[in-house]
Amino acid sequence: MNPLQHAVPSRPLNLNSVSIHDPYWTPYVQLVRQTVIPYQWEALNDRIPDAEPSHAISNFRRAACLEPGGFGGMVFQDTDLYKWLEAVGYTLSASPDPDLERLADEAIELIAAAQQEDGYLNTYFTLAEPGKRWTNLTDCHEMYCAGHLIEAAVAYWQGTGKTVLLGVARRLADHIDRRFGPEPGQIRGYDGHQEIELALVKLYEATGEERYLKLASFFIDERGQDPSFFHQEWKARGQISHWSPGVVQETPPALEYLQAHKPVREQEAASGHAVRAVYMYTAMADLALHRGDESLLQACRRLWNNMVHRQMYINGSIGSTHLGEAFTFDYDLPNDTNYSETCASIGLIFFARRMLQAEVKGEYGDVMERALYNTVTAGIAGDGKHYFYVNPMEVWPEASAKNPGKHHVKAVRQKWYGCACCPPNVARLLTSLSQYIYTASSNTLYTHLFIGSDIQAELGDTRLKLKMDSSLPWKGSVSLTVRALEGPAAFTLSIRVPGWASDCRLAVNGEAVTPVICDGYAYVQRSWAQGDRLTAEFGMKPQRLYANPLARANAGRVALQRGPLVYCFEEEDNGAPLAALSLSPEAPISEITGRWRDEVVFLETEGFRLESPPGNELYSSRQPVKRPVTLTAVPYTLWGNRTPGQEMLVWMRES
Amino acid sequence: MNPLQHAVPSRPLNLNSVSIHDPYWTPYVQLVRQTVIPYQWEALNDRIPDAEPSHAISNFRRAACLEPGGFGGMVFQDTDLYKWLEAVGYTLSASPDPDLERLADEAIELIAAAQQEDGYLNTYFTLAEPGKRWTNLTDCHEMYCAGHLIEAAVAYWQGTGKTVLLGVARRLADHIDRRFGPEPGQIRGYDGHQEIELALVKLYEATGEERYLKLASFFIDERGQDPSFFHQEWKARGQISHWSPGVVQETPPALEYLQAHKPVREQEAASGHAVRAVYMYTAMADLALHRGDESLLQACRRLWNNMVHRQMYINGSIGSTHLGEAFTFDYDLPNDTNYSETCASIGLIFFARRMLQAEVKGEYGDVMERALYNTVTAGIAGDGKHYFYVNPMEVWPEASAKNPGKHHVKAVRQKWYGCACCPPNVARLLTSLSQYIYTASSNTLYTHLFIGSDIQAELGDTRLKLKMDSSLPWKGSVSLTVRALEGPAAFTLSIRVPGWASDCRLAVNGEAVTPVICDGYAYVQRSWAQGDRLTAEFGMKPQRLYANPLARANAGRVALQRGPLVYCFEEEDNGAPLAALSLSPEAPISEITGRWRDEVVFLETEGFRLESPPGNELYSSRQPVKRPVTLTAVPYTLWGNRTPGQEMLVWMRES
Repeated sequence: MNPLQHAVPSRPLNLNSVSIHDPYWTPYVQLVRQTVIPYQWEALNDRIPDAEPSHAISNFRRAACLEPGGFGGMVFQDTDLYKWLEAVGYTLSASPDPDLERLADEAIELIAAAQQEDGYLNTYFTLAEPGKRWTNLTDCHEMYCAGHLIEAAVAYWQGTGKTVLLGVARRLADHIDRRFGPEPGQIRGYDGHQEIELALVKLYEATGEERYLKLASFFIDERGQDPSFFHQEWKARGQISHWSPGVVQETPPALEYLQAHKPVREQEAASGHAVRAVYMYTAMADLALHRGDESLLQACRRLWNNMVHRQMYINGSIGSTHLGEAFTFDYDLPNDTNYSETCASIGLIFFARRMLQAEVKGEYGDVMERALYNTVTAGIAGDGKHYFYVNPMEVWPEASAKNPGKHHVKAVRQKWYGCACCPPNVARLLTSLSQYIYTASSNTLYTHLFIGSDIQAELGDTRLKLKMDSSLPWKGSVSLTVRALEGPAAFTLSIRVPGWASDCRLAVNGEAVTPVICDGYAYVQRSWAQGDRLTAEFGMKPQRLYANPLARANAGRVALQRGPLVYCFEEEDNGAPLAALSLSPEAPISEITGRWRDEVVFLETEGFRLESPPGNELYSSRQPVKRPVTLTAVPYTLWGNRTPGQEMLVWMRES
Repeated sequence: MNPLQHAVPSRPLNLNSVSIHDPYWTPYVQLVRQTVIPYQWEALNDRIPDAEPSHAISNFRRAACLEPGGFGGMVFQDTDLYKWLEAVGYTLSASPDPDLERLADEAIELIAAAQQEDGYLNTYFTLAEPGKRWTNLTDCHEMYCAGHLIEAAVAYWQGTGKTVLLGVARRLADHIDRRFGPEPGQIRGYDGHQEIELALVKLYEATGEERYLKLASFFIDERGQDPSFFHQEWKARGQISHWSPGVVQETPPALEYLQAHKPVREQEAASGHAVRAVYMYTAMADLALHRGDESLLQACRRLWNNMVHRQMYINGSIGSTHLGEAFTFDYDLPNDTNYSETCASIGLIFFARRMLQAEVKGEYGDVMERALYNTVTAGIAGDGKHYFYVNPMEVWPEASAKNPGKHHVKAVRQKWYGCACCPPNVARLLTSLSQYIYTASSNTLYTHLFIGSDIQAELGDTRLKLKMDSSLPWKGSVSLTVRALEGPAAFTLSIRVPGWASDCRLAVNGEAVTPVICDGYAYVQRSWAQGDRLTAEFGMKPQRLYANPLARANAGRVALQRGPLVYCFEEEDNGAPLAALSLSPEAPISEITGRWRDEVVFLETEGFRLESPPGNELYSSRQPVKRPVTLTAVPYTLWGNRTPGQEMLVWMRES
């Protein structure tokens, strides 16, 4: 048996086969269950005081003719409810909650009532532009909404076994399958906001219906063909945009922004709207897996490499500009104007999981972990009711307030947004976290994330129960214990050796082992018996990280990381302006606990502060005085939780 | 006699009393006369291939019913022609040019023909919204246009003695004087874009008509009173903006942006649109001077201090954001997204000259010089046909092209713009440069700028001719020679001792003198005779300049200056990325000539380059390797002239 199983595709475990019990993650999952989901239900019903109304439930009631009135909110408002239902589906899979299930069933009934006879379902077009279905895919997110309905339906079916929403989703998918495709009379088009592609793969996986996989392939392969569908559609609708009503435009939609400038297999660099990009790459990887399509997998690798090695922030976030919520270009990583949307990091996690399924490489797991531990959880406040869309690398609150180029950079997490994509996206990711920890092939169980959990898995004919304990992110101890196994069996336990691990010691039943390590994964192949335990100790020495100087914004700067956590400096510990501080390149970095929440590890080291001149003059020929100071760093993901609204900085000058 | 004359107001010399002959500035003035003015005439007539059309002449022809058609361009398009005429007026004052004068007279005839019977004149309202005069002062620049007409009329009258345009301007000013004011039936309003206030002072100075001064005072004192005129006007026109036709707005115009959030005398900090601000401050200083209004002067000092000591870039530019072309807040001086409009530095020069008239202080002259030698001339290419609006402190051309937050930062000077305020503004400043060099009181001639010139001046009863020779900005030698004087006379020659002068040696007829130096000016008081010569040698040692670390963007950075010139680093000499470079704090700085144009002084010093890691990875725990390199700096004002479209950097890391 070849221990290097990473060339063989693996698959995630079933949703109900993994149960998370982890001192770090369980509180997040509980927060979503106990606070976020109920709070978001209130938001969907426009019952949060002083927050922008969602209109989501109201739109469905109106589309179902249950109340009078028009459409409210953005064209993609339906997805708020769909994403909420998806999260509810995952939650119900993990722990029953009859009251919640009743609310969800009512919402599903409402959705079903809003579906049109021919299967069409979209409250915006039904209420606001009934004659204009499928005439502006570029702007109007029609299939994006359909995709989120499908994802919700699959999750709710997985979580409850109920098929009402799955039926609604299939009828809509069938409707779309009739309207779109290469045949005469069909539209050879695809959506401006990718999402349905990955959703159709899920629908195929849930139903076994090949048509859905074929339709996803059609959308992926048609995208970017010449002549441009988006340009033809734009001309056909009179050169107008949904976003500037009544204005005839001179320039057609920007194809690179829409990831439709060339066929997806030929795209070289991540471009355009960041969330759309990673949703599309996820579907591409899905299709490559299901169809064994090597050229599509090669395109995924190429786009992954460009994105991760040229355009990703150190917190695992993407999208260098808020203007269009988009990628810009290689090495353009400004710290104080970045977008780094929470949703984009979630999409990056989706993509990474698919790439891990296709080929086990530490880099995919490292990036998944980086995005999860740093950006996704930074997006949500400790109370579960305040969120960041934008995850900046540097915040000067006065600039956020007074420099209009930085208005998007919030110094304080906000209540539910009018365009509320991120909060429900965080909820659906955290409730489905079990899907990202492990994958399995016929003889290997891969551990990608270190999150305490009980699992049931089948490796070929071998059924086993296994328990993972993890002390991440604060300590580096992990163990996998075989809890149940019918007699000893030969298989491989493979675990990721994190890129941040300053060293790695593995043992089986307390005895050190030196397994094969390949592409960032350790492979322990043996005959396992019930009670066997594989332990890993990952070194957690705080690290200084440096950016390639081609990333202009970070030249001469350093960032700190310990374990999977990127650190930042807050005004609260270090005083303002943080820009006046610099880190000594050689000073030791010590770890401090007990300062805030018992477990949180602060880092302390030495550096300097440039002092303002006596008369506080703006320019001077006198070099500012440099005083030694002790600097304190906190995990980036927790920033702004102690005293919201202060300065924060990830990349500090080194001197 | 008290040598400290700086408390006594002084006045500029008459336009035709100063004639510039200067090796540095004469080529600029010639460029304007021989290239810019003819080129701009072609632009005004829409005859520049591949450039956006101006529509200016065409609008006047249409308003005068000489050709059919509607209005083209921006609401303030008329001012392009007015600023051009103002520059022509100054040019004709310095050197007759019958062909040019004929063109100008024809244009003036056209303007007169477009004036309405009641004196009203504005081609936008005449052609596009004839019933809407004076209903949207917030947005529509109606008085701004009138102000530029008045400035042009005064300049053309000064330059040629002709009064046709002055008559047009007076009829328009009289029309405005009837419509606006505190009396019943008059509008208690003022313009969204200040300009008419300073123009009315000029009209008063030209005509002696007190009404114009009074009207200027009304506009200044009414501004910012409660209830807000702009809010009332906004409600009266149905809460719509000129810039978003048909959209009823929820929020009224932002008063701080319009410098109308409180009465001008109470304003503490420079805010809002930068050009409007400095035009307003100029008028405030004018009025303070003419009326001996100490509280208004105090407000000018306060606003000056805030602007210059908290919000000014080192190149003498202002306006930290392109969004609204505006100030942001204290110490917010981003290097790569700033606006720093050429026009705003021109307005800063206007304001500085008035402040110098009110009180002689070196700082006013230093800032005037800084803006003139660095930003204003940076705004115009060596060919006179390409211009910068935006004067960035740092340019990464790929970011300008691909990061939409930096699209306003051009790496290459552009042809005539659709909104073409800067090119004609540069032209009118350079052709009237003689107005900024000297001022005179009854017994003192002040020299504020060191620009070779012949002058005639009257100090009380004393008439003299004087010649200045200057080797600035490349060398620090200046001399003032008394060329004609009827017998010896006692008066004071006062010259600014520049803030950048590393030392200053003064001599009279070759003998060292040690004059009183007060507030940055040296006062040489004696009995002067024909042939006497005052010489000054200013030390030009290259300087390192540091910003207050409160200016976050520049903490840990250094800029170089030599004499009045701020330096920058260009990719051409130093290679990209410039961000990878750092300057050694102690290395000597040497001066190199002969490398480009004989006279241009380059600076050379030592520093380091951070190298990209071998595999070009984005993040690494290995500190980048630092290699020693020689660094070359060029005068900022000349950047982008050798090889346009490359990287440029003013503030470099120090390490």
